[in-house]
Amino acid sequence: MSDSKDAAARHPLAMDTLVAFCASRGFIFQSSEIYGGINGFWDYGPLGVELKNNLKAVWWQRVVRERTDVVGIDSAIICHPRTWQASGHVDHFSDPMVDCRTCKRRFRADQLEGERCPEAPKKRAVTDCDLTEARDFNLMLETQVGASMDASTAAYLRPETCQPIFNDFKRVRDAARQKLPFGMGQIGKAFRNEITPRNFTFRSREFEQAEMEFFCHPKERESWFTFWRDERMRFHRDIGFDETNLRFRPHAADELAHYANAAEDVEFLFPFGWQEIEGIHDRGDWDLSRHSEYSGKDLIVTDEETKERYTPMVIETSMGVDRTALALLVNAWEEEVLEGGETRNVMRFIPALAPIKVAVLPLSKKLAEPARTLHADLARHWNVFYDEAGNIGRRYRRQDEVGTPFCATYDFDSPDDGKVTLRERDSMEQERVPLEGVVAWLRDRLETAL
Amino acid sequence: MSDSKDAAARHPLAMDTLVAFCASRGFIFQSSEIYGGINGFWDYGPLGVELKNNLKAVWWQRVVRERTDVVGIDSAIICHPRTWQASGHVDHFSDPMVDCRTCKRRFRADQLEGERCPEAPKKRAVTDCDLTEARDFNLMLETQVGASMDASTAAYLRPETCQPIFNDFKRVRDAARQKLPFGMGQIGKAFRNEITPRNFTFRSREFEQAEMEFFCHPKERESWFTFWRDERMRFHRDIGFDETNLRFRPHAADELAHYANAAEDVEFLFPFGWQEIEGIHDRGDWDLSRHSEYSGKDLIVTDEETKERYTPMVIETSMGVDRTALALLVNAWEEEVLEGGETRNVMRFIPALAPIKVAVLPLSKKLAEPARTLHADLARHWNVFYDEAGNIGRRYRRQDEVGTPFCATYDFDSPDDGKVTLRERDSMEQERVPLEGVVAWLRDRLETAL
Repeated sequence: MSDSKDAAARHPLAMDTLVAFCASRGFIFQSSEIYGGINGFWDYGPLGVELKNNLKAVWWQRVVRERTDVVGIDSAIICHPRTWQASGHVDHFSDPMVDCRTCKRRFRADQLEGERCPEAPKKRAVTDCDLTEARDFNLMLETQVGASMDASTAAYLRPETCQPIFNDFKRVRDAARQKLPFGMGQIGKAFRNEITPRNFTFRSREFEQAEMEFFCHPKERESWFTFWRDERMRFHRDIGFDETNLRFRPHAADELAHYANAAEDVEFLFPFGWQEIEGIHDRGDWDLSRHSEYSGKDLIVTDEETKERYTPMVIETSMGVDRTALALLVNAWEEEVLEGGETRNVMRFIPALAPIKVAVLPLSKKLAEPARTLHADLARHWNVFYDEAGNIGRRYRRQDEVGTPFCATYDFDSPDDGKVTLRERDSMEQERVPLEGVVAWLRDRLETAL
Repeated sequence: MSDSKDAAARHPLAMDTLVAFCASRGFIFQSSEIYGGINGFWDYGPLGVELKNNLKAVWWQRVVRERTDVVGIDSAIICHPRTWQASGHVDHFSDPMVDCRTCKRRFRADQLEGERCPEAPKKRAVTDCDLTEARDFNLMLETQVGASMDASTAAYLRPETCQPIFNDFKRVRDAARQKLPFGMGQIGKAFRNEITPRNFTFRSREFEQAEMEFFCHPKERESWFTFWRDERMRFHRDIGFDETNLRFRPHAADELAHYANAAEDVEFLFPFGWQEIEGIHDRGDWDLSRHSEYSGKDLIVTDEETKERYTPMVIETSMGVDRTALALLVNAWEEEVLEGGETRNVMRFIPALAPIKVAVLPLSKKLAEPARTLHADLARHWNVFYDEAGNIGRRYRRQDEVGTPFCATYDFDSPDDGKVTLRERDSMEQERVPLEGVVAWLRDRLETAL
């Protein structure tokens, strides 16, 4: 991106700060840290898994559950290898690579500039090294499945979640008794052997996608493309992204995939620049035609009224779950200057996405027992945190910085008046609420529709 | 199991019937069916994904959210390969295998009886074939990660979700500011190259686990083992399993894993016999000691009061998500004989697990518009199905057989009296409820605690 440096320069949050914060608070950290990590793989800690699960839940709610014309599936990560021949991934999902004969590392042939050979004198530029010819390096992770002795058992970890949707199109349409237009959504892991994972979780080798393939009549493809493009932007606004951090970026004709008729990215302004968090793609009939050709199965549909037979067109919405979660962390982050000059760190997640919905805080450990009862009541409904250690101001701040929208403080008056203090994260306003009304008070504020 | 045949003989449900039902209704079917399938891999359709997600949600709720001493994580499927050296999987996670030189297939050396060679004359018994010597065949799926030219890039798909928990123990304990005893839970995919996948989804090559590792002082290990053993059985009772289909099976001393002090399975009576759906294991300090040794990192904890330093003991609860979902399908299945001799198929899921909570059924397509408004209202809260085709009796039966606990029928009186008919699955009783009270009526019946 030409404006990445500008973005980084003016962004209030440095990536290093965010990475360190995420590790220390248990949002996200390197996989296998005790073994020095493994490049391109990340683990989600107690707060991170809640954030990510909340994001997946609101996507599923909006895209699958609220619509009568979209159904969900959950397919295996490893599917029949012919799938990836039909999709073109076996032949074409590759980057041109060169190997350095000195350091044995591999580099993208089209991105050599700035790379250095760690083994060569004075870490000379890789462009001056003894390099092999450029060769295509497939980005799919391969494995062997089954008990046969021969080579026919090669299989791949799916590099995208959409192809198994096409595999299952006919089965699911029949089972769900759906007529066109209709869509199939799924959330799941995908794997790509990226040569240079970077920007925290933005470009990693194991990642999660939330994809929806919408099957429609050829005459309706353009209107559905527009519909889903706008619908997906509405989603990103509704989950709390600032308008100024969001934009569309239509693909130019020369960057469209060979099967694509139109494509538009939803981009977010990260500290490292504008980058895609979701793509909306008009894939035409490419996928179903190819899978029909490679499987020998008829994937044509018949219009019940006109009796017309046609291969459905596909509009795809493809959200990167990890990169959207990363964008949520960036977007929510604020160092707020309070009256009097004090500052506090606060994560302004919308309630539906906040990892912890309520923290229950007894003012003293002597009040632990009734406070734990309150925790148990609330934990039947939401993810609730319990913290009885340290002074109350510090405990509030600790919740602010991980984005907890409400704190319920059980104090020395509570046993007498049967009330607790509910404190709101953003305004820091406090209100005394009767214990028996706490669930309803919170439900009103936590379960508002997106 | 010695009693498998008895179980199968007296079980009311034949597996073939269940497999066909699951495919046609969109619960579960073979991955990549259009390519002839891939042995040991399964896809979940629109109803199956909801059932499985509901099961994962109630596990997460019970094991992680309701407890202040357990936190959740979500680690990468691929972690540092040293992890699997430390755990012993690289050296020991294998079955003894022989290859048949005629058909090129591979068989478990200790399970040759009954196997036939498809290439040999009259499909002779494999025991009479030209076989190789028995060799150990590692069950981990291997892949290559990264851009290096050398062999150091071998990595494995995790064969169990627990080892990354041990990798992350120190990081998460610090981030979550937890003192012992405390536990870490996670739900996620694992992979094993089973030689003979079988019994539908029971033994597959890609599967999901819900595991919790509970770290405690050596003196408390036995009491925590007993606690978690009972706690997990309570869970299985609460999700609706009949008492007569559940039992504990303690491992005999000679079948314990080398690191285990005690182990007990929760078994369910499948049509193919009593089989494990969850294991509770006392793993001692094996895992943390090994990871400490292989990583060089100190994983010892210090008791804040006594200053004693010790390696925590681990009690593990390990539930197979797919096999528990399969058990739920078996358990819920009933062919009920109604008064008058008519039969109906009904799945008796508890409301929390039912894939569809409510079906909205307009009595006629002319009533579609207000019925769709009702659907939209209810779909804000639950997974709701909408069906306007066919006669109402058949629509009720269709919901019964997939286990939908409630149907809401919008009829020709509804526009006038502002009420709909709510029908309950098991009793088939009906009640007229005002439209504005439907959410509350359903919430009372759907959101009861387990």
